[in-house]
Amino acid sequence: MFLKARKKLYNFVEESTFFNTAILTLIALNALSIVLESFCALKNTYEAYFFFFEIFTVIIFTVEYIARLLVADYKYPHKKITASINKYIFSPLAVIDLLAILPFYLPMFIPLDLRFVRIFRLVRVARILKAAKYSNAINLIHKVLRKEKEQLLVTLYLSFLILFVASVLMYYIEGQAQPEIFPNIPAAFWWGVATLTTVGYGDVFPVTPPGKILSTVVIFLGIGIVALPTGILASSLLEELNLKKKELDTKCPHCGKELD
Amino acid sequence: MFLKARKKLYNFVEESTFFNTAILTLIALNALSIVLESFCALKNTYEAYFFFFEIFTVIIFTVEYIARLLVADYKYPHKKITASINKYIFSPLAVIDLLAILPFYLPMFIPLDLRFVRIFRLVRVARILKAAKYSNAINLIHKVLRKEKEQLLVTLYLSFLILFVASVLMYYIEGQAQPEIFPNIPAAFWWGVATLTTVGYGDVFPVTPPGKILSTVVIFLGIGIVALPTGILASSLLEELNLKKKELDTKCPHCGKELD
Amino acid sequence: MFLKARKKLYNFVEESTFFNTAILTLIALNALSIVLESFCALKNTYEAYFFFFEIFTVIIFTVEYIARLLVADYKYPHKKITASINKYIFSPLAVIDLLAILPFYLPMFIPLDLRFVRIFRLVRVARILKAAKYSNAINLIHKVLRKEKEQLLVTLYLSFLILFVASVLMYYIEGQAQPEIFPNIPAAFWWGVATLTTVGYGDVFPVTPPGKILSTVVIFLGIGIVALPTGILASSLLEELNLKKKELDTKCPHCGKELD
Amino acid sequence: MFLKARKKLYNFVEESTFFNTAILTLIALNALSIVLESFCALKNTYEAYFFFFEIFTVIIFTVEYIARLLVADYKYPHKKITASINKYIFSPLAVIDLLAILPFYLPMFIPLDLRFVRIFRLVRVARILKAAKYSNAINLIHKVLRKEKEQLLVTLYLSFLILFVASVLMYYIEGQAQPEIFPNIPAAFWWGVATLTTVGYGDVFPVTPPGKILSTVVIFLGIGIVALPTGILASSLLEELNLKKKELDTKCPHCGKELD
Repeated sequence: MFLKARKKLYNFVEESTFFNTAILTLIALNALSIVLESFCALKNTYEAYFFFFEIFTVIIFTVEYIARLLVADYKYPHKKITASINKYIFSPLAVIDLLAILPFYLPMFIPLDLRFVRIFRLVRVARILKAAKYSNAINLIHKVLRKEKEQLLVTLYLSFLILFVASVLMYYIEGQAQPEIFPNIPAAFWWGVATLTTVGYGDVFPVTPPGKILSTVVIFLGIGIVALPTGILASSLLEELNLKKKELDTKCPHCGKELD
Repeated sequence: MFLKARKKLYNFVEESTFFNTAILTLIALNALSIVLESFCALKNTYEAYFFFFEIFTVIIFTVEYIARLLVADYKYPHKKITASINKYIFSPLAVIDLLAILPFYLPMFIPLDLRFVRIFRLVRVARILKAAKYSNAINLIHKVLRKEKEQLLVTLYLSFLILFVASVLMYYIEGQAQPEIFPNIPAAFWWGVATLTTVGYGDVFPVTPPGKILSTVVIFLGIGIVALPTGILASSLLEELNLKKKELDTKCPHCGKELD
Repeated sequence: MFLKARKKLYNFVEESTFFNTAILTLIALNALSIVLESFCALKNTYEAYFFFFEIFTVIIFTVEYIARLLVADYKYPHKKITASINKYIFSPLAVIDLLAILPFYLPMFIPLDLRFVRIFRLVRVARILKAAKYSNAINLIHKVLRKEKEQLLVTLYLSFLILFVASVLMYYIEGQAQPEIFPNIPAAFWWGVATLTTVGYGDVFPVTPPGKILSTVVIFLGIGIVALPTGILASSLLEELNLKKKELDTKCPHCGKELD
Repeated sequence: MFLKARKKLYNFVEESTFFNTAILTLIALNALSIVLESFCALKNTYEAYFFFFEIFTVIIFTVEYIARLLVADYKYPHKKITASINKYIFSPLAVIDLLAILPFYLPMFIPLDLRFVRIFRLVRVARILKAAKYSNAINLIHKVLRKEKEQLLVTLYLSFLILFVASVLMYYIEGQAQPEIFPNIPAAFWWGVATLTTVGYGDVFPVTPPGKILSTVVIFLGIGIVALPTGILASSLLEELNLKKKELDTKCPHCGKELD
């Protein structure tokens, strides 16, 4: 009977539309709460509400985490129970699920430090990342990263090389003319990122003629190459989406059987 | 005889080059008038002229709207009269046509409020959107949106997720260093939009090293993905235009018969 | 004998490597001279040199223009002499050639006005455009424009519509909050251009929440569409260049015969 | 026996994983050292350490350079010894290797001048470029440049023409309104680069209506064309990487034999 209950639980957390919609709604409400809390006035006035919502969220997400853990062996039917639980705990989705609740429990065991509080707030963003599970966004990106791994590494290496060499040169050329803007090479690296991605905030730019000439050369040589990794990622993602679409097109949307 | 007159009217509003050119010219003159009215000096000096032109425009567009309404049943020959009129009234083109004249009539029935006047001015832009009917721009975009709906939704979801997570993290990291620039998360969201689309106005950017590192990572991960929805839209529009072009190429431009 | 001399002249101006190199060198020197003249100090010190170089240039380019005019009928062998001269005079290349020398002669016939002097300086840039004849740049672009005319017009129309509607809305929304930045609609149009092309100088941007929301929506809807005309131009140019390359690949580089 | 030692040395410097990893590590440490040295505080406190590391690096790289020189004839087996050494010395990789150590030795022979010291620092960046040898980045780019040479030249020519004409026009139009921002044509050229690549730092932009109109026209005409060379470079690099990937796919990763 316990086994039957677990099987039912597994079906509930994995396939129930009600459960998934509820979790997704709670994620959306958390996103809203994070945004609202960032307004000082709102945070001070409704502090109690935010606190109760926080406790409510953590309880639900904790129950969800434990439930998924209890039925982890159904997910990997060919593995032993301990192995499957182990595998589940370290899967990206479970790590995100854990990070979404951990910041609440940790201060109970570790003496509270103000700096830690800030990092905990950062980690709470994991709650929003839980939403990536839906629409298979994480699966898609994971697939694409594994497929294009090699090409991404080569182009990232090239991008980094160009960024590094351009930044070091810019530091040597502009450092004396603008010691406050280019105090060291990491500052020049910030110029390189803003320039080669064409964001161009306008907080860092060369003012001496040699600096402008270097900038021009670097822009013409580098924009295309720095755009390569992000371009590969995007085009591969698009390809994957098109494959999925074709699959849908050749199957009946009602019965799932092949049409042709 | 009344039926014959309506048939003639239908041909006139749908196919007459004279009528279409006249309406397009009036739209262009309205665009010009909106631009000229935005100059304070001109508006004050020629207020009477702008007022008369406004009345003239509204009369013509009202007549056009009523005429199209009267012959709506010819547009959907397989429907009943009431059904076809209903369908016409809620078609995007008719809604735009209505919005183009409504702001003039509404104050006659509802007591005038200054805030409403500003919204009415916004709605008057619908007059320019009437021009989208010509060159089939609206049809094209409508087709593309329906065709790529699924992929647009997935990529928009991904873009929004990246934008949201990046903005929340940036708020937590930079909020204390620049409380005036990043007072809350929506303000950080504005940074995310300006950065990930590479517009980079330069009004919001990180100044602390952790903020700059996050910015760099986010730019490299995100630019390609945030550019996906707009890229899908553009490439699909191009494809649709190419299809149309090919259709034209294989048909004789004079008789419309297939050339091959 | 006069006919033979003209035939020789035709071959000289059209095919002689020496003549073409000489003209190209003179164009390059003119480009250099225009740049150097823009430095006040240089202009004042070497005014005489610049003046002599100007006269020298005008003489050579005038002789070239007359020579090309004299042999225009060889260029269009199937036309009558007067028709071919007429056609040549109004061809884009001949118009550029004329504009390159006209600013020097015109003040002799028309009383000199200071405002005209500035326009003449603008027209002198035509001398640099003469260089476009070499490497067939003008021919390429002309071909591409004719081939993609229809698609360019549709996408330009769409781009303009988006730009116009976005700018008018932005003016209505931001005009009151930033009356100095958005004094009228053309000023808002400048925001639209800088934003939708992602240049983002940072001189104009919304500061009110509704303005920022409109900006975000417009960017996501518009970037891809505004980039379409320039993308069509670029991809068509690339295609044309690839065709040329293939032609070269299948022909022997020495004798011009087909390789296969 | 000496020949055998040379053969061993050749295998060591070309194929030994230990040697390559050691050199790559030293390059990475040099990159780190260049970054750290750019912080004034660190440089002054640990000057001795930086100096010792500099000497250590130069010794290793000098030994590497001499070793590679001694076995250069094995690299070009079909050439005579003197010819192969000559060819090796002027190969891009060897030139970079030489530049990485030269700045250390030169001051011993040439009286030291402060300006030279700065240029030497620039040249030291060659040490980072040594890393390009790994992952075949340099070979890839070399291949791509040779393959697309013609198209790159034509599009660079076009880009330069557009940049030049746009900048000269902008100087004539805006020069009087903003004499400090557009003092001469090279300054306007800087505007052209920042605008047509859509970087848009925001330090230079037109303020007069004619300048803004020119800017708009130039942006719409030029962005696509200026992006062509960098686009050709990027897409050709991607193609080359895909070819490599396919080669890997059709061969067994273990034995290197064809799979099909």
